Amino acid sequence: MTVCESTTIQEHLERARAPIDAELERILPPAEEYPQSIHRAMRYSVFAGGKRLRPALCLEAGRLFDGDEKLLVRVGSALELVHTYSLIHDDLPALDNDALRRGKPTSHVVFGEATAILAGDALLTLAFEVIAAAGADNGARQVLQVIQELAHALGTVEGMVGGQVADLESTDSNHDSARLDYIHSAKTGAFIRAAVRTGAILAQADHAGLDCITTYGEKIGLAFQIADDLLDVVGTQEQMGKTLGKDEKQHKATYPALHGIEPSRQIAHRLATEACLALAPYGQRAQVLQGIAMYIVGRRR
Amino acid sequence: MTVCESTTIQEHLERARAPIDAELERILPPAEEYPQSIHRAMRYSVFAGGKRLRPALCLEAGRLFDGDEKLLVRVGSALELVHTYSLIHDDLPALDNDALRRGKPTSHVVFGEATAILAGDALLTLAFEVIAAAGADNGARQVLQVIQELAHALGTVEGMVGGQVADLESTDSNHDSARLDYIHSAKTGAFIRAAVRTGAILAQADHAGLDCITTYGEKIGLAFQIADDLLDVVGTQEQMGKTLGKDEKQHKATYPALHGIEPSRQIAHRLATEACLALAPYGQRAQVLQGIAMYIVGRRR
Repeated sequence: MTVCESTTIQEHLERARAPIDAELERILPPAEEYPQSIHRAMRYSVFAGGKRLRPALCLEAGRLFDGDEKLLVRVGSALELVHTYSLIHDDLPALDNDALRRGKPTSHVVFGEATAILAGDALLTLAFEVIAAAGADNGARQVLQVIQELAHALGTVEGMVGGQVADLESTDSNHDSARLDYIHSAKTGAFIRAAVRTGAILAQADHAGLDCITTYGEKIGLAFQIADDLLDVVGTQEQMGKTLGKDEKQHKATYPALHGIEPSRQIAHRLATEACLALAPYGQRAQVLQGIAMYIVGRRR
Repeated sequence: MTVCESTTIQEHLERARAPIDAELERILPPAEEYPQSIHRAMRYSVFAGGKRLRPALCLEAGRLFDGDEKLLVRVGSALELVHTYSLIHDDLPALDNDALRRGKPTSHVVFGEATAILAGDALLTLAFEVIAAAGADNGARQVLQVIQELAHALGTVEGMVGGQVADLESTDSNHDSARLDYIHSAKTGAFIRAAVRTGAILAQADHAGLDCITTYGEKIGLAFQIADDLLDVVGTQEQMGKTLGKDEKQHKATYPALHGIEPSRQIAHRLATEACLALAPYGQRAQVLQGIAMYIVGRRR
């Protein structure tokens, strides 16, 4: 398998779903558990067909440093809970007001706003519970570091919520390259960076290893968001399973709007290549992570 | 000071605010930090005049077992972030739709719904970051246990979010004593129980000690919610600083509605007394916690 065969990587990601989905099934309270509505809502969004990209990144980064497989699957699955929380809240009427996600009605459309807000809250909370429990037997120090880094990446200072706020506040008159970079790096990049670092930290990677994986994470984080911006312009609704063209309609700050479509494509590909190069010291062992980098910029949904 | 002098305890709580507020000031990003709107919103609600009861409970429970003062203040303050998150989300239009809290307009009224949702998310996230960071130097195992217990108490299975959902779904036709007990124990009790256990766990209390403090926490947790229900019926809006009589109007399951006002008062006082008795083995050293128990049922706001 060469790093550029994104079809092969797509198959790899598809196979990697099974253990993650099994773990998520185990972690989430059963749909019959009282109060049922909230558990049904949590499960609905978690099992709505996500790519499980963040768990895969955590898992593969951890494997690069011979991390414990069970611990990586556990914590990787918790990252998917966090990702789902962010999507549910992002889709709310008061925020992006999206009725469609991955081709299905969003949480508040199905369960109502109150349950959607609480389902997001509960998924975020459960993620921290799961991660903390994973450190009870061993690696307490690493797990604490992971919780701290993850929470920071989800926060307001150069983290996800900060990025969401800056994005909501972006208007026609305040688009500039610095604000756009902040939004992209905070809203999407910080969490993806944290996902790969989580795997490496749990596997007790040394400083040099952590530096490589951090560079990789930062490059693919930005590449991912640029690819997302591009798909909003050139993708089809059928492929994406969500409302498209919204960025332009809402006058959002995006790469295509600021730099043009073709230059944005080139930047995304350059970033993916740089991400691959950052892992060159690991030779063949890094090929899955390198494949994911190329897949991210080549993906159609 | 005897345990029944709730005025003295009120003064004690008032004095105990200073170190907690100083810590919260240090923990929260400055209002000028970009993006400013979210940091202003977080600070607005955290410094809106809360009683700092959960930090005080954590601190006093930790002191009972000679815990490290700095660690207790740090983690206790994080509990106030969590409490503030729960209030902001609870007040949202889709949930309790409250415009007034502690005599001030609620977060979504001042900052809009989107920022209020994100401010709640960010406070919850920051709390876990702060607690995890507190364990970096020492006590990693205890801090992990605290994160796990706290997250569970905030979750859907007999935790805060589960209680909120059950409360939202309670209607005229499904009021019964079992559901009411679930709502009270999950919505308010679990977090208060976790607050005192947090202090004791951080102070490395032994099994017997943890049992005593857990009983104390469970008793005052339920007493607190009954007192809250009573204040909604017999308190004045001026004293409480929030919209009153809402429980009855919304046909909520409450103790006064199910058991009557006077019997509810008696139950609350019996619980507070039992909470005090649970700490009898600690003699004079438990008098502040015992005072807080009596204060909870005697309070006017």
